[in-house]
Amino acid sequence: MKVLGIDVGFAITGWSIVEKERGVLSIIDYGVITTSPKESLPARLYEIYDGLKHIIKKYKPDHCAVESLFYFKNQKTVIDVAQVRGIILLAAQEKKLNIFNYTPLQVKIAVTGYGRAEKKQVQEMVKKIFNLLEIPKPDDAADAIAVSFCHLNSIKT
Amino acid sequence: MKVLGIDVGFAITGWSIVEKERGVLSIIDYGVITTSPKESLPARLYEIYDGLKHIIKKYKPDHCAVESLFYFKNQKTVIDVAQVRGIILLAAQEKKLNIFNYTPLQVKIAVTGYGRAEKKQVQEMVKKIFNLLEIPKPDDAADAIAVSFCHLNSIKT
Repeated sequence: MKVLGIDVGFAITGWSIVEKERGVLSIIDYGVITTSPKESLPARLYEIYDGLKHIIKKYKPDHCAVESLFYFKNQKTVIDVAQVRGIILLAAQEKKLNIFNYTPLQVKIAVTGYGRAEKKQVQEMVKKIFNLLEIPKPDDAADAIAVSFCHLNSIKT
Repeated sequence: MKVLGIDVGFAITGWSIVEKERGVLSIIDYGVITTSPKESLPARLYEIYDGLKHIIKKYKPDHCAVESLFYFKNQKTVIDVAQVRGIILLAAQEKKLNIFNYTPLQVKIAVTGYGRAEKKQVQEMVKKIFNLLEIPKPDDAADAIAVSFCHLNSIKT
């Protein structure tokens, strides 16, 4: 079972491919897709879409796990991020992945056991869970690993 | 000059193809793409995306005009609609259309000359401007014609 976990962002979208085989978790790869504010919004959406399609083609994940959006203070931000989320869901749907949504709270609880965990604590736990020497960089990639873990942990139970 | 005007919606997305040749405006076609709440969000996004790509392929518009989103009271609604808007921008970008954004205020002013016009007044003016016997149905299609008109009117000046 291979999952593509995504940390949705406009300037930086984090992604991870995490596998679970006979109970053993392993990170296959992770990274970020970055877009430049110098480009138009549609061009940036296209870059994220195209980048994701390449990742899906390369790693052939079975499932896609994405954080759901809510409770933003800034409506401009929520609109930008939701537009990106739309194209992420589209790319996964086109490639016929099963798509699962998790709230930030679910991700935090899955990784740290604690709903009010700080971002840094989540990343430290990612390092521990996967026996890594360092926290994966950038933060958005570590967050995407947390989303994959949350999913693989949820479907176990 | 042919424009694809879009009224972004989740359950119903209105579209119009309006042409301006030697100062003469004409509606080439219009309609709506509807999606069912019984389907998953990614499946609905894919239907809208696929529908739009077919429309673009059939009518080969030069430009795409889309309403911008803001000031929603309900965050759930704005997230859903923004996700749809993301895939609309993506479809237009993939087909290399020039994309233009208009606020609801700009559309109202372009069509009625009055920023506080009611939805119904906008639709009545669409009927008048294009010498139609009736207001195009459903409302979302009439709204999409208003968006196309707003764009063709803006690039004139």
